[in-house]
Amino acid sequence: MVDIIRVNMTDGSIQRDPLPKSYEGLGGRGLTSAFLLKEVEPTCTPIGPLNKLIFAPGLLGGTNCANSGRISVGAKSPLTGTIKEANSGGQAGSYLARLGIAAIVVEGQPKDGRLFKLHVTRDRCELLPADELKGLGNYASVEKLKGTYGDRVGYVSIGQAGEWKLGAASVAFSDRDGRPTRHAGRGGLGAVMGSKGLKAIVIDPAGGEAAPLADKDAFREASKRFLNALQTHPVTSQGLTNFGTDILINIINEAGGLPTRNFSTGRFEGAEKVGGETLNSVTTARKGDCSHGCMAGCVIRCSGVYLDEKGDYVSKWPEYETVWAWGPNCGIDDLDAIARMDRGCDDIGLDTIETGNAVAVAMEAGIKSFGDVAGAEELLAEIGKGTPLGRILGSGAGAVGKVFGVRRVPVVKNQALPAYDPRAVKGVGVTYATSPMGADHTAGYAVATNIMKVGGDVDPLSVAGQVDLSRGLQIATAAIDTAGLCLFVAFPVMDIPDAMVAVADMISAKYGIKMTVDDFNALGSRVLKMEREFNTRAGFTAADDRLPEFFKLEKLAPHNHVFDVPDEELDRVFNF
Amino acid sequence: MVDIIRVNMTDGSIQRDPLPKSYEGLGGRGLTSAFLLKEVEPTCTPIGPLNKLIFAPGLLGGTNCANSGRISVGAKSPLTGTIKEANSGGQAGSYLARLGIAAIVVEGQPKDGRLFKLHVTRDRCELLPADELKGLGNYASVEKLKGTYGDRVGYVSIGQAGEWKLGAASVAFSDRDGRPTRHAGRGGLGAVMGSKGLKAIVIDPAGGEAAPLADKDAFREASKRFLNALQTHPVTSQGLTNFGTDILINIINEAGGLPTRNFSTGRFEGAEKVGGETLNSVTTARKGDCSHGCMAGCVIRCSGVYLDEKGDYVSKWPEYETVWAWGPNCGIDDLDAIARMDRGCDDIGLDTIETGNAVAVAMEAGIKSFGDVAGAEELLAEIGKGTPLGRILGSGAGAVGKVFGVRRVPVVKNQALPAYDPRAVKGVGVTYATSPMGADHTAGYAVATNIMKVGGDVDPLSVAGQVDLSRGLQIATAAIDTAGLCLFVAFPVMDIPDAMVAVADMISAKYGIKMTVDDFNALGSRVLKMEREFNTRAGFTAADDRLPEFFKLEKLAPHNHVFDVPDEELDRVFNF
Repeated sequence: MVDIIRVNMTDGSIQRDPLPKSYEGLGGRGLTSAFLLKEVEPTCTPIGPLNKLIFAPGLLGGTNCANSGRISVGAKSPLTGTIKEANSGGQAGSYLARLGIAAIVVEGQPKDGRLFKLHVTRDRCELLPADELKGLGNYASVEKLKGTYGDRVGYVSIGQAGEWKLGAASVAFSDRDGRPTRHAGRGGLGAVMGSKGLKAIVIDPAGGEAAPLADKDAFREASKRFLNALQTHPVTSQGLTNFGTDILINIINEAGGLPTRNFSTGRFEGAEKVGGETLNSVTTARKGDCSHGCMAGCVIRCSGVYLDEKGDYVSKWPEYETVWAWGPNCGIDDLDAIARMDRGCDDIGLDTIETGNAVAVAMEAGIKSFGDVAGAEELLAEIGKGTPLGRILGSGAGAVGKVFGVRRVPVVKNQALPAYDPRAVKGVGVTYATSPMGADHTAGYAVATNIMKVGGDVDPLSVAGQVDLSRGLQIATAAIDTAGLCLFVAFPVMDIPDAMVAVADMISAKYGIKMTVDDFNALGSRVLKMEREFNTRAGFTAADDRLPEFFKLEKLAPHNHVFDVPDEELDRVFNF
Repeated sequence: MVDIIRVNMTDGSIQRDPLPKSYEGLGGRGLTSAFLLKEVEPTCTPIGPLNKLIFAPGLLGGTNCANSGRISVGAKSPLTGTIKEANSGGQAGSYLARLGIAAIVVEGQPKDGRLFKLHVTRDRCELLPADELKGLGNYASVEKLKGTYGDRVGYVSIGQAGEWKLGAASVAFSDRDGRPTRHAGRGGLGAVMGSKGLKAIVIDPAGGEAAPLADKDAFREASKRFLNALQTHPVTSQGLTNFGTDILINIINEAGGLPTRNFSTGRFEGAEKVGGETLNSVTTARKGDCSHGCMAGCVIRCSGVYLDEKGDYVSKWPEYETVWAWGPNCGIDDLDAIARMDRGCDDIGLDTIETGNAVAVAMEAGIKSFGDVAGAEELLAEIGKGTPLGRILGSGAGAVGKVFGVRRVPVVKNQALPAYDPRAVKGVGVTYATSPMGADHTAGYAVATNIMKVGGDVDPLSVAGQVDLSRGLQIATAAIDTAGLCLFVAFPVMDIPDAMVAVADMISAKYGIKMTVDDFNALGSRVLKMEREFNTRAGFTAADDRLPEFFKLEKLAPHNHVFDVPDEELDRVFNF
């Protein structure tokens, strides 16, 4: 039996009820999207009282399946105006699942602008004043909360960006060390949390227990096969484990698809200085941790610990997309500075992709120069101070473009593009254009097949095959996000046929159902259809499933391609 | 024979050709919208090279028909993303028509960010450097241009706002006294002009002649009947003539529909201090001009001259919507300050409606207090200086709301609502929601029938009849904007049956055709359909034809109504 907790911020009431039948068989992204489609008016004001903010662990949450502890956050996005799901590692997903909670649904809005924290324990759920946290960043907030709640709980929080309802505001989740380093970054969900007056959620797992399994033996057997796949595939057992996601810098640079200086060229002369190999050697030299899991049950352990020259903690290892956003995309090759900015984003509560893009667009506008490390750090500090310039930057790349009259603004549905140029990796360009989430590499990671030749081989520069590739990946990803699995399991899943069967077998064994791989994919299709339906009702059309004009007009060096997947092809992605 | 002039800003080439057959029978808004639908990709970047900026006098331009000298400006709007037409008085419309020019079409974009001016004479059209005008406001720009081109030409220009490509940037047109006081204000068309590197257009009417008439006698006869209607109707012969459009302050306040302090109540305690009666008495006392036409051939003469206490020129009489935007909507009752801000907006080149709303939303965000006159003037000065805060404000109310996390933002399609609360004047609410231009009172002025009982009587607080009223007015307005007539002719046209016949008769007599009143309305329908088609291709749907949520949730005092015209009713507006 799993429950949902409804928290009404208008009157402070809280209710715990069994998950309604209509939501059964859904978790994670599938559940947040289903709630939104059913309960939220798609044209509502994202930071108004009619929006809802939903937290949900995945279908495999609370089990001992490897890498199954992701938590999905959903709402209508203040950044894109679309339905939005962003998911995160950290401890919250598994803790909630072990408390038998399928979802927390935050509704309404307090009238007076006050701040609250939600304390969730096995037996009760309580809304308490949190005025003492007002204006604090995530690190200070969590530190303060630890004084009351200690180390053995999970923290969910927003920084200043969320309180100010900025479009790039993230929701932070504490990691295994109790640091707010894991973020549901994209789409400004922190702003929705801020608009609800909810500064933090404290999840105490005490007394919780592993999720019940309909068939324990079958589950154990399937989870072993799954684990084996993770520990066999070179990406999940070596590449990510040793070099973090930042291993991609040199790979994508080599492929000519590393967007440099606001997407003006595809190779960065300083790539090597900020790539995963350097990250590893710097960390090793400083006696930091090169292999660290962001959540319990992780066997990939891509999240290292970054130390400064004196050996003091700076941040978790910045992700590839973070290194890119603050690095090559701003013309910056200083890894220490990038790690500081990663820490700054985590603290203020900002999506690093959106914010790095915002700064790069500001550089294009002439506010700072590309390559100006001190300038970039200054701009991030402006966001933390909440100055007008900081508010613009914290509202995302689209806002910077509008306010400063920039023509070259890399956004789809007003969400900034991640670290792969769509002209050199056309499959992921199709995903950027068509995902119901706005530009998002995680929505259908065609980079795997275009560049890393995982799950097949589709020429990154050709048009042929990209739409089918993106479609298949978007469907599989929606299912993986619904299961609550870390997206990196996709590498073995795409290459090792039995891995996906094992996922379906685990879900079957947990819920006492018979799920095939086809059923698992059907689940992904169903989730995408719900999301598309929400967006259609919100007013989105095929005209929104397009890349910005400049990708079609300007050739990208070194391959000198434009993005040339025809519109009619893009419109074939959701032909199911 | 009329021509179009194509100005290519990419390569500097200029071409004058006869108006293509497919555009015949169109002028003004009808012509700008037809060009946009045919020649501009609806999903293009508004400030990019693929957008086009079109200037067009109306079908009756260049004749001696009263009040026929309006000029339409069209482009894809950087503010709304929709097709956009904004029209203006001043001298340019009639001058262009007398030179036999049906439209100037500005295309492409210079690569290096340089500024140009376009010099239009009877015999040639030349693009010249305008670097000497860089960073100048409209007043200083026109003053400088006068040194070269003198007093007997028409000036079209942008201020700093246009150069910076701000969403509230207007295009200024010089009036009969050579002052840049008339503006195509709405939709940020000044930003499109700025994005083309076009700082000014100088139109020399020398050698031009009255537009040819197919049947001079019939034209003379019809234009007399039309003139008679204008001079008979109390609104166009007395109300507007003596008190300007500001006569509406007390009327709309009395009706409980004067949006006060960012649309939080419908009556303003200081209304009388800023209304038309006060404007008249202050102007009379200071020996200013209470009755002044903005263009030659105007018989309404609603545009007075506002002097300060010392008797020095401040601005033209601020329009009702300007007085409202900077006055009641900001809680301000200081007419001198409002006139200064009107002047400031004209100089920087800003839409007063958009900018006043932006300031009111900033006040709601707590940046200044409602009623803070010095604070409002400071904010306007920030825009002129181009500070980050100024850029936000100059980007419009929607941008202020996004950047500062404000929930109550009065925009439709991201364009700010004008001076009539849709909860107390529901007919104009229907127009705001559904006009292809975004929130715009001039697109279908239901206030006339709701409040002033012109053209019938539809209860402003009831739902019944509003959709039919708005539809009829939107159609008639599209036709009037195509004819190049000042919208205020609508008052006699709605009340005096022969006035509309006279308009159709004038067009018939000029072009040698047989146009009935039905044909004239059909023309309006055709224009709206083109605009809707552009918007549909740009991705707009019924979900965009809605007022912001707060108008449906919050009751407006004193009548305590919400906006309750059902969505299905709104979707009936364009049922033709």
